[in-house]
Amino acid sequence: MITIRNKIRLFFSSDKKLYKSLKNSLGFYPSNINLYKQAFRHRSVCSDKTQSNNERLEFLGDAVLSAVIAHYLFMRFPFKDEGFLTKMRSKIVSRTQLNQLAKKLGITNFIKTNGDNNLLNSSINGDAFEALIGAIYIDKGFKTANDFILNTVLLPHLDVDKIEQTETDFKSKLIEWAQKKKTPFEFRVKEEIGTGISKQFIVELLIDSEVKSLGQHYSKKRAEQIAAEAAMALLPQ
Amino acid sequence: MITIRNKIRLFFSSDKKLYKSLKNSLGFYPSNINLYKQAFRHRSVCSDKTQSNNERLEFLGDAVLSAVIAHYLFMRFPFKDEGFLTKMRSKIVSRTQLNQLAKKLGITNFIKTNGDNNLLNSSINGDAFEALIGAIYIDKGFKTANDFILNTVLLPHLDVDKIEQTETDFKSKLIEWAQKKKTPFEFRVKEEIGTGISKQFIVELLIDSEVKSLGQHYSKKRAEQIAAEAAMALLPQ
Repeated sequence: MITIRNKIRLFFSSDKKLYKSLKNSLGFYPSNINLYKQAFRHRSVCSDKTQSNNERLEFLGDAVLSAVIAHYLFMRFPFKDEGFLTKMRSKIVSRTQLNQLAKKLGITNFIKTNGDNNLLNSSINGDAFEALIGAIYIDKGFKTANDFILNTVLLPHLDVDKIEQTETDFKSKLIEWAQKKKTPFEFRVKEEIGTGISKQFIVELLIDSEVKSLGQHYSKKRAEQIAAEAAMALLPQ
Repeated sequence: MITIRNKIRLFFSSDKKLYKSLKNSLGFYPSNINLYKQAFRHRSVCSDKTQSNNERLEFLGDAVLSAVIAHYLFMRFPFKDEGFLTKMRSKIVSRTQLNQLAKKLGITNFIKTNGDNNLLNSSINGDAFEALIGAIYIDKGFKTANDFILNTVLLPHLDVDKIEQTETDFKSKLIEWAQKKKTPFEFRVKEEIGTGISKQFIVELLIDSEVKSLGQHYSKKRAEQIAAEAAMALLPQ
């Protein structure tokens, strides 16, 4: 609910348009509009030190988002183990997913960058989305941030059942990539370190007979996924 | 505050001792004692599927702890960038730190394991501490979990200024370890992958001429730290 005081402030504010747009996207009026402006300010437009970019808020928003999604998954999947919960959460908060969510929520227009085209394919939208969550948390507290994430973002825009069924599967992505580029690849267990319960696999991923990345984990499959994910970040698309 | 109903329940409960000990450690009485029992139940004592171990609660507690510490650092260091905040947080929630906190809070006696000596040097205490935070969050909500982390854990038991000044420095810890055990070690850049902005170093850590762990990062120093941290988790103390 917007108070009379805020209404008056809003009426005289030069940020009237931003207030209204944010109300449409978020479902509530901001109290401290400057936090939201900061959330949308990419570091490329902060050459001097007088203006803050959105990276601190992104750090906070990322943590709040993780906690809220963790709780949601904990309650929604009471019989699944923490491996499943961890995997589900990384799917939900992946850069690709967050970039898409930013678009669905219509917040991409608010983001200020220096317009550099190299930035276009990056994670600017997803980062700003996380920063927005940080701003909401500071501005309105945990409950509002929690409700925003669940009721405005997750439930209307994410199909958790569908996400559950699709593999995050960087290995699949790697296979697709390799087929497209007609490039051979191979996972190789380079080493097993430790014994018993603390035994870990170090897996190396060779692309065109050259080591591209490594993955280390208690599970060999997970180590392969880690290596595939690391490689996907490096490979020309 | 403990309600009359809870008092009666407590009086007849076989968990009377645990209730009282938890009150001493946490500063409040649990509502649902089973959550706390689960938080202290290591997977080594859950051979059958009828009892749940603490790993789901650890997943949740880890996320809540991260968010609360992120917020605390965000407010405490208003002029520090997100790199600093991230680094500070990993120092605060490092396994070593969490294991110590579990001891300081006196919760290690509550933890149930199968008594396997191989487990003694692991992160069981820190994991149970995170699971406890998960239990508090489910049992009492975000505010209580937040207040517990800040007022019962962080402020009395952690010297944030001191943590700020000390390097997380797993390399220093490794050096200490190597001196104590009179064991030679060496970091070796195994490979550089990618070019330009996405160039990463793969560093291997050899202990007694044997590869013990690997680290991969854009910064060589950070890759060495990652390798040192991974090795420290594996080495006999």
